[in-house]
Amino acid sequence: MVVNATSGAGHMRDLLDAVRPPAAARMADVRARLDALAKPPGSLGGLEDIAARLACIVGNPPPPLHRRRVLVFAADHGVARRGVSAYPPDVTRHMCALFAAGGAAVNVLARTVGADVTVVDVGVDAAEPIAGVVARRVRRGTRDLADGPALTPDEVDAAFSAGWECARAAARDADIIALGEMGIANTTAAAAVTAALTGEDVACVVGTGTGIDAAVLARKRDIVARAVRRLGGERDPRAVLAEVGGLEIAALAGAAVGAAASARPVVTDGFIATAGVLAAARMCPAVADYVFASHLSSEPGHAVQLAALGLHPVLHLRLRLGEGTGAVLALPVIDAAGAVLREMATLEQALAASRSAAAPAVYAP
Amino acid sequence: MVVNATSGAGHMRDLLDAVRPPAAARMADVRARLDALAKPPGSLGGLEDIAARLACIVGNPPPPLHRRRVLVFAADHGVARRGVSAYPPDVTRHMCALFAAGGAAVNVLARTVGADVTVVDVGVDAAEPIAGVVARRVRRGTRDLADGPALTPDEVDAAFSAGWECARAAARDADIIALGEMGIANTTAAAAVTAALTGEDVACVVGTGTGIDAAVLARKRDIVARAVRRLGGERDPRAVLAEVGGLEIAALAGAAVGAAASARPVVTDGFIATAGVLAAARMCPAVADYVFASHLSSEPGHAVQLAALGLHPVLHLRLRLGEGTGAVLALPVIDAAGAVLREMATLEQALAASRSAAAPAVYAP
Repeated sequence: MVVNATSGAGHMRDLLDAVRPPAAARMADVRARLDALAKPPGSLGGLEDIAARLACIVGNPPPPLHRRRVLVFAADHGVARRGVSAYPPDVTRHMCALFAAGGAAVNVLARTVGADVTVVDVGVDAAEPIAGVVARRVRRGTRDLADGPALTPDEVDAAFSAGWECARAAARDADIIALGEMGIANTTAAAAVTAALTGEDVACVVGTGTGIDAAVLARKRDIVARAVRRLGGERDPRAVLAEVGGLEIAALAGAAVGAAASARPVVTDGFIATAGVLAAARMCPAVADYVFASHLSSEPGHAVQLAALGLHPVLHLRLRLGEGTGAVLALPVIDAAGAVLREMATLEQALAASRSAAAPAVYAP
Repeated sequence: MVVNATSGAGHMRDLLDAVRPPAAARMADVRARLDALAKPPGSLGGLEDIAARLACIVGNPPPPLHRRRVLVFAADHGVARRGVSAYPPDVTRHMCALFAAGGAAVNVLARTVGADVTVVDVGVDAAEPIAGVVARRVRRGTRDLADGPALTPDEVDAAFSAGWECARAAARDADIIALGEMGIANTTAAAAVTAALTGEDVACVVGTGTGIDAAVLARKRDIVARAVRRLGGERDPRAVLAEVGGLEIAALAGAAVGAAASARPVVTDGFIATAGVLAAARMCPAVADYVFASHLSSEPGHAVQLAALGLHPVLHLRLRLGEGTGAVLALPVIDAAGAVLREMATLEQALAASRSAAAPAVYAP
């Protein structure tokens, strides 16, 4: 078990203070450049928005984002004992082993887009470390959030620091960082965190997760509603994470902050990853300027989170797996957006070149 | 100018008859395999649907789709003289030159995903062939569809054959074929084709294209409505393409059929490309089984077409450029879907491996 010796609210403040806003002053130039390219202004829609934001983060034009890494934070949840998930808690541990072996969905998808996978155990409920997984376990799972606080503030800080440090380490050799997670019952914690941070109705943020029936869904809603009620309207992200959060959600928040502090674009995944990002953005609003939404999950609370963050998802695939699967799938699109600024001709260049060209056709079927 | 000597309705029938339906009998096995993988059943949503359809087309598990080609069909439109576009007609020609030079949006995006670009002139209004572009010009642009039939049936057949042959040629060294287009004023023709083929209200399928104001939009709607009325409810795709279509739309229809006849997955782009695909599917319903929707355009008629085809777009980026830009961006996602079937472990394998593993952590930040 590892608890960071320098954890605490003061330390967390230092980590947040390391984030500088992207160079928004660059935006006008970038937009002018996009409008001058050989296409109707705005006709690349959301791809232009991604390109413009990317240019503010990594420079204009953005360099290629070839070195890609997805950080997958794993932890267990005491509330799993309430039967809120379709799967038993030990699946978290087995899936971590599968990540390490390279056979899970996120590994497969990451390989197709040239991304490396790092799995971080911040709170798996296992007796031993998991081979092939970064060992940053704060405790063996959270406490049951239906019973009382899931974590102590120090545990939140330790998980947050672990996430921050992993993102900073990843930023040393990654151009872009995707976020993912694994943890049986973590849609329950993510729903509670989302409801608490946004004030949204619990009914609008609790979904069927890995696949539960109506009776279990009703129980899950009831558990989330009671847990959120204990916060009495408190929206401080650290307090929310402690009362109803999870170690991987706190680590995801820390990772988003750490990647932003390293001026790396961050790609969020689905409902749980985005709960962490939302907490991070509530601690430090500039973090949201580094984050790109990859996909719209079929979990209903994901749209609530993205709206709160002002983010627009690229992919609509009704994913509900997590692991970072949607985030890695969006990496080629985000990289392609940067290439538009880097490689496209302007309309003026195109017309000049066209008027001077007179060579024969080069290809015939 | 090239008009295929073997064109005609009988020849088109031969081309359509070359399409065999995908191996739908394989679907049950593929779905069972997807459900056995180490994830909750159905949790990869639309990616599982893509994987399953791909397996029926190219085999189970699908091989990698590394060799990717986008076919960009270009033509001019007589109706451009009515001022229905924000751009003058000679932009078609200049953009073809830019495609050949590699500086347009589709070139840039294609490079980021490892796709090759082939541009085919099936009806650009230019005096000479365009360097670097496949010369299959049927005529210099369509006639003005506001005046009367845009094309003769023989011209439709010639463009269709050109598309078919280009797709067959591309299939010799491409695992997957994306479709794109270029043609000033071609959203007008695509809207007319879509309204005529689906029976949808013209108001629902006419959009602002490259960017026109309300007055021009009203004129465009009026032109489309009058042209569609001339068809008197006729929905035969060949008749529709002749009365209100375009050479690139007919070529796109032929390309979709040709790719399907070669058992290659086809990725459609936005409103114009999908007008061609819709015409193809109305000629030969099995074609739709080979087609994947890449994105949802901001042109309102695109959703109408996709619904008519029963296709679900992967990307939501509010693109309205055409060229095949959305289609190439979706290629990595479609390839990744196949990798899920090819590389993911089953839950059973994962549990067996996890229970036997006991090595130390391999990575620490």
